[in-house]
Amino acid sequence: MKIFIPLVLTLVFAIAPAQSSLPKPGELDLSKCTEVIRFYLHDQFNGSNPTTAIVLPPRNNETLFGQVAIFDDKLTTESSINSKPVGRAKGFLVIDSLSKSSFLQSMTVELEGRKGTIVLHGQNPFTESRREIAVVGGTGEFRNVQGYALTSTTGAEPGGLIAIYEVHLVRFWECISKYILPFHIVNSDP
Amino acid sequence: MKIFIPLVLTLVFAIAPAQSSLPKPGELDLSKCTEVIRFYLHDQFNGSNPTTAIVLPPRNNETLFGQVAIFDDKLTTESSINSKPVGRAKGFLVIDSLSKSSFLQSMTVELEGRKGTIVLHGQNPFTESRREIAVVGGTGEFRNVQGYALTSTTGAEPGGLIAIYEVHLVRFWECISKYILPFHIVNSDP
Amino acid sequence: MKIFIPLVLTLVFAIAPAQSSLPKPGELDLSKCTEVIRFYLHDQFNGSNPTTAIVLPPRNNETLFGQVAIFDDKLTTESSINSKPVGRAKGFLVIDSLSKSSFLQSMTVELEGRKGTIVLHGQNPFTESRREIAVVGGTGEFRNVQGYALTSTTGAEPGGLIAIYEVHLVRFWECISKYILPFHIVNSDP
Repeated sequence: MKIFIPLVLTLVFAIAPAQSSLPKPGELDLSKCTEVIRFYLHDQFNGSNPTTAIVLPPRNNETLFGQVAIFDDKLTTESSINSKPVGRAKGFLVIDSLSKSSFLQSMTVELEGRKGTIVLHGQNPFTESRREIAVVGGTGEFRNVQGYALTSTTGAEPGGLIAIYEVHLVRFWECISKYILPFHIVNSDP
Repeated sequence: MKIFIPLVLTLVFAIAPAQSSLPKPGELDLSKCTEVIRFYLHDQFNGSNPTTAIVLPPRNNETLFGQVAIFDDKLTTESSINSKPVGRAKGFLVIDSLSKSSFLQSMTVELEGRKGTIVLHGQNPFTESRREIAVVGGTGEFRNVQGYALTSTTGAEPGGLIAIYEVHLVRFWECISKYILPFHIVNSDP
Repeated sequence: MKIFIPLVLTLVFAIAPAQSSLPKPGELDLSKCTEVIRFYLHDQFNGSNPTTAIVLPPRNNETLFGQVAIFDDKLTTESSINSKPVGRAKGFLVIDSLSKSSFLQSMTVELEGRKGTIVLHGQNPFTESRREIAVVGGTGEFRNVQGYALTSTTGAEPGGLIAIYEVHLVRFWECISKYILPFHIVNSDP
């Protein structure tokens, strides 16, 4: 019993610290492995230096159904186009709704000081006050990300419109490392 | 020993119930975190109210390579276009095969009573009897989904064709909650 | 105590073997559930049998911003177009950069002997020596994959250019089965 007791006590106490840090089902949230990135996007479709080109015209004058545009938009830290630049958002839009103002938006985001791009792809009903677009992947620092971007049009400026983006990047594997594996380590190091 | 024994016994018995419910490697299936959604899609490319517009013509008359179309198709519960409407599928098709009938299909699905959209993106060899398109993400209720859609053309109707879609949505994080975490909780609540 | 000791000893020893095989945080890598697929892609935009069609012209002669192309390119095991064919890559390119040579590339890969397709979608700054494109999903054998593709232009050939692709496919669920569940089984089979 002399050998036995310390072994078991070690096991019991090794498990104890895990109790408070382990998530309970229903308490689970992904915030521990979510990165939030915020920027303003400047879509300049008029003016002397447009960043968007309409490459296919609409088939319907009301909703603009059928129109296709390609863009390379400036991103900044604040609402003003002259605030600190933080990157570019490049991609295309396909206006694909017969009933409202909406486009399928496919866009990659590159950010200064970050290696790689974030890939967004989803429906953007652009006249609604708050929209959500899926994050479908990424490269470099953003490999294997999932998540979503919340976006709203915040104002107009000469030549175009300003939209705020709040990109929520989820790294599931990181959550597994933080939630699941630490418990294993505690549990398996008696 | 008097304090010690109940602690260990509790631990041992707390682990016991997990034995029967834990998946064994090889037994693993994702059905516990998969939602299946089924609908009929009505692609109306002819007639008085087409839901599809060809925006770029084909370069090859045999396979229609080079053709691009944009659509906003009605979804219903049953095969008839007059059955209960359940949503819309919006997006575009790029005919990209030199050897057969196939398009790259990018489409978001919105469903009545559900918040958010499902994003499908993949190759659809549309003359084959059964095709599969990847689910690459989603928004709202469908954030962070993965999965696939099985689709078949089921018939023709005035103005177009009918296809059935069976969308399999996998929520990996939910599976982790159901498979992995319950064992942890049992194990760490002595 | 006679009944009790063997139970606890079994538990302690059942945990022991897991110690050496369990990953430690920071040691975690995804290589155990990553498949690497390598091929050469032949983009034939000139010559008698082009595999790429420019379907929309550029708006800017320097960067070709605004140009859209659709392709169905041959894949081979070696650099020569006459080496063993291994599949096709189909999709489209949207030149979306005002400042450099870059396109948003959406492409599905089908491989001989493999059921299903891999879906790549991302920015390809095609004059850089090494680029990375996100893997956003797949079908058949490639259901629920994530990952990335590394690509470089390796040379020219009559009618076009040759690029090497090294596609890294990650199956997270497989990693969970290999890393996380085996420990559970050991732990729960006293």
